[in-house]
Amino acid sequence: MDPRSVGVVETQHLELPGPLCLDSGRQLRQVKVAYETYGTLSPARDNVILVCHALSGDAHAAGLSPTPPAESTRDGFAAAGSPKGIGWWDGMIGPGKAFDTDRFFVVSTNLLGGCRGTTGPSSIDPDTGAPYGSTFPVITVADMVRCERAFLDELGIERLAAVAGGSLGGMQALEWATSYPDQVDNIVVIASTHALQPQGVAWNAIAREAIMRDPAWRGGHYYGTGSAPDAGMGVARMVGHITYLSAPSLAEKFGRRLQSGENLRYTLHEPEFEVESYLRHQAASFVRRFDANTYLYLSRALTYFQLDLEAAAERIRARTLLIAFSSDWLYPPVASEEISAALHKHGKTAEFHLIEAPYGHDCFLLEEARQTPIVRDFLNEGRP
Amino acid sequence: MDPRSVGVVETQHLELPGPLCLDSGRQLRQVKVAYETYGTLSPARDNVILVCHALSGDAHAAGLSPTPPAESTRDGFAAAGSPKGIGWWDGMIGPGKAFDTDRFFVVSTNLLGGCRGTTGPSSIDPDTGAPYGSTFPVITVADMVRCERAFLDELGIERLAAVAGGSLGGMQALEWATSYPDQVDNIVVIASTHALQPQGVAWNAIAREAIMRDPAWRGGHYYGTGSAPDAGMGVARMVGHITYLSAPSLAEKFGRRLQSGENLRYTLHEPEFEVESYLRHQAASFVRRFDANTYLYLSRALTYFQLDLEAAAERIRARTLLIAFSSDWLYPPVASEEISAALHKHGKTAEFHLIEAPYGHDCFLLEEARQTPIVRDFLNEGRP
Repeated sequence: MDPRSVGVVETQHLELPGPLCLDSGRQLRQVKVAYETYGTLSPARDNVILVCHALSGDAHAAGLSPTPPAESTRDGFAAAGSPKGIGWWDGMIGPGKAFDTDRFFVVSTNLLGGCRGTTGPSSIDPDTGAPYGSTFPVITVADMVRCERAFLDELGIERLAAVAGGSLGGMQALEWATSYPDQVDNIVVIASTHALQPQGVAWNAIAREAIMRDPAWRGGHYYGTGSAPDAGMGVARMVGHITYLSAPSLAEKFGRRLQSGENLRYTLHEPEFEVESYLRHQAASFVRRFDANTYLYLSRALTYFQLDLEAAAERIRARTLLIAFSSDWLYPPVASEEISAALHKHGKTAEFHLIEAPYGHDCFLLEEARQTPIVRDFLNEGRP
Repeated sequence: MDPRSVGVVETQHLELPGPLCLDSGRQLRQVKVAYETYGTLSPARDNVILVCHALSGDAHAAGLSPTPPAESTRDGFAAAGSPKGIGWWDGMIGPGKAFDTDRFFVVSTNLLGGCRGTTGPSSIDPDTGAPYGSTFPVITVADMVRCERAFLDELGIERLAAVAGGSLGGMQALEWATSYPDQVDNIVVIASTHALQPQGVAWNAIAREAIMRDPAWRGGHYYGTGSAPDAGMGVARMVGHITYLSAPSLAEKFGRRLQSGENLRYTLHEPEFEVESYLRHQAASFVRRFDANTYLYLSRALTYFQLDLEAAAERIRARTLLIAFSSDWLYPPVASEEISAALHKHGKTAEFHLIEAPYGHDCFLLEEARQTPIVRDFLNEGRP
């Protein structure tokens, strides 16, 4: 076993004692939360880092799963060389890593609305005894954070040394610092934004349309029918995947290479270019590990997210680390600059780091080595 | 009637006398071509400009159609202020315009594989008496140009003063100058490339997947079934549309404005943001005017297109005008620069103009006013 690995970690589950009140005005009862922890909780309970996953992640952020699913959350460009069952941010969490489990007690949950153990649209609605499907309430990033807050109460954790995440995970970190300013010492916001740009709203809408237009979606009630909107979710994943990568990185990895050597096959149905084949593979692999309704709900939540920067900067008390990647055109670095500027304007502590890296939005999952010293230094400097 | 309009123009049709031999080795018989002409053919037949349309265009490039279809080819951002039935490049073709019908005889055809009068997958296969569907041969840009060459033979036109087009239309212009170097005096290649970049290959693959994964596609044989893969083609169009526009232009036009004023409705199914509603509208309008199989075949052809720049630059004798747009991330300006450099290296006449404009790839349809003096000057200087 790699001494820098947290080892084999099994996902645990607990149920929140009370109902969860949502932004929409609705409530969820009997909410279950799937989670993992890495490292040791200090006696003073002051060394907790909450790590928040993005759209397609789960609670298994680090270490090896004792029961790895057939398809890993480490897919796409991150699949190369990854052992089976490894966590989606294993390079960042562990002894001596960015989120150093020799010092910190790192907690990772599956998001509210998820499909990997936490209550979501595929869960049983206690009021009906049947899966929610599209009767699951539309949720927001604030609802996810409310769920995380209630979950940490159950663990007896009041304060967080840090909340960290990339993309939708970074939105949760920002929301934590805004909603619970007195309970968060630091936030680490990577490849994220205070409000998705309109083009990103459009990409997410297209992905959701692809799912909802698949007849197998059945208005959201496909559980138990023996089929699922795999065709549409495959297209959604393809759209997502290309928006997560940069044009130069696709050119470098695939170029215009053909599947069958030198000659065109003059086929409409089959992939001709390697990148076409890669997309089909990504789609096929994703639909085996992810629920389409969860995709819809999390996509909706991340498009909704919109912090009023001035108001947020006034409320936030956490030291804030912002990391963005030069080639990330889905979550362009300018948003991180704007957040940093707003915080500085209100006299708050904020650091912005732009990493020159070619892999687009997925850099937050791929460029672990270059994020590590930035995160470590930031957390060290913030030590009381 | 606007004195700068070519007036009411009806699409005409003719049938090629012989079979059309294709790159795939297959042949097409009884090929029909839909076309329009604007201006007057000179007695010497030396004033002909062939205008080539892009993926979703048709033969009706200029003037008003006497029988306008319900949905215009001028859609998206180009729809604003456009009269019903107006041609897709009306701003460029007419008396005193870029392609000046006081001087030139402008010819526009619907592409081979099209769905607006020229033989394509929705046409009747003379061998079976039934529509081709996906038994239609896979075609290439060279096949399209071969069809245009055979069509012009029927009009008694040997030489072309110019071939012009944007996007897939520009590919045809490049192919003309390479395949028939002695028959083309000038080419005007706008927002185009000698080989689509891998990210563009991916977007096209995703659009085709969206169509082919729609059960109503039925392996390509949906004609006469009473349904069509509208759901999938709607998604394909949404993907295309967003790749044709730039992120800043979407931000400027839609921002993050909600459909229903100030408040979220917490709905999964209905558009919340204006840009979501716009996408649905674009999709609904496109499926009413365009055939899904044609989309597949033309998309395939444009991803196949790949000129060996060195070999092409050696062959090309036409004066070459290249125009690209700063915000076009689907057909980035660098390709036009590379074509220009290759032509210069081989001592050929080439001009490259980069237009700073915000609307992405669609600029070739939107920025008519700024293209006009460039094209006019280029064609004037080339006058014998």
